[in-house]
Amino acid sequence: MADGPHTVFIEAGKVRPELFDAHIERRLSSMKGQYLDQEAYRRMLEEEDRLLYEVYELRRPEKEGELLSGISIVHPGKVGEEYFMTKGHFHEVLDTAEIYWCLSGRGVMVMETPEGEWSVKDLSPGTVLYVPPRWAHRSVNTGSGENLVTFFVYPAHAGHDYGTIESKGFRKLMVDRGAGAEVIDNPRWRG
Amino acid sequence: MADGPHTVFIEAGKVRPELFDAHIERRLSSMKGQYLDQEAYRRMLEEEDRLLYEVYELRRPEKEGELLSGISIVHPGKVGEEYFMTKGHFHEVLDTAEIYWCLSGRGVMVMETPEGEWSVKDLSPGTVLYVPPRWAHRSVNTGSGENLVTFFVYPAHAGHDYGTIESKGFRKLMVDRGAGAEVIDNPRWRG
Repeated sequence: MADGPHTVFIEAGKVRPELFDAHIERRLSSMKGQYLDQEAYRRMLEEEDRLLYEVYELRRPEKEGELLSGISIVHPGKVGEEYFMTKGHFHEVLDTAEIYWCLSGRGVMVMETPEGEWSVKDLSPGTVLYVPPRWAHRSVNTGSGENLVTFFVYPAHAGHDYGTIESKGFRKLMVDRGAGAEVIDNPRWRG
Repeated sequence: MADGPHTVFIEAGKVRPELFDAHIERRLSSMKGQYLDQEAYRRMLEEEDRLLYEVYELRRPEKEGELLSGISIVHPGKVGEEYFMTKGHFHEVLDTAEIYWCLSGRGVMVMETPEGEWSVKDLSPGTVLYVPPRWAHRSVNTGSGENLVTFFVYPAHAGHDYGTIESKGFRKLMVDRGAGAEVIDNPRWRG
């Protein structure tokens, strides 16, 4: 973590992760109970604890006025019919926004509020997505074989609430039932 | 200003400004007293009140937890030996950061703190610059004929203090005295 003004380089397709402060890897085993087809999940995990997504972070003090930023890379693949995705989370300080910039790949952001609104927005290179305060968000790679790479910025005091999504799930899921990416209701959603 | 999650497209070289909420134009006449060579400034202004830079904004409520973002375009040119630049400002809430992403062109960010530290960082496509809390910042186009285009994000409650820079100036200036861009002390700086 640099103290003064500092720069990193993240041209599309040319991310230089060595410039980032931290590298987080999320594997299949960390997504227990999150995918709809639990039998497919179990079988896949028996074969290999695959890397689903990675985050490179620029560290800053987690206090108001600072910004946290980094690169998220969701790898391509499916668990059963359901696309690889991030855990997804609310911000612990619910009234904080986030901005995503899609650098490469194809995907969607699945979002919802505690009040029951939901939204699914397409991500392709050049898309800047505003996730307003109160919206939980999850990146999903719906592309065919490419990584979904986004740059994100959010207020540093926002924090992460993963627990709510882990126990309730998202209202909507992204699946491929043969005709490409579609949004379906999550039959296991617990309101 | 959209209320729910929303997207815009800003691929390098393909900004679609019609998707933004506001367009701010800053002309030479708005930079009175800011350039070192005041005689060159006067002569240039007599000829034409040239457009120096433009900002396209995504509007959001200016309150804590929201983020403001947009595109800044500094046009190429010089007033005397000094490159075209933005007014530059501190944030009114001094302890707030800003992140810049350079999309195209060449330039620098000139920065300083109230305590007297200064920094000049190069901007080229792919550079992500972290401007920490407390640092005043000004974009300068040091390229040869191209626009300097950046995408910026900052906490929506930060506000702008232009007055301090307007009356004191920055400690450092960016000039071309025949050998390309160089940083010089600002002889008119008022501490």
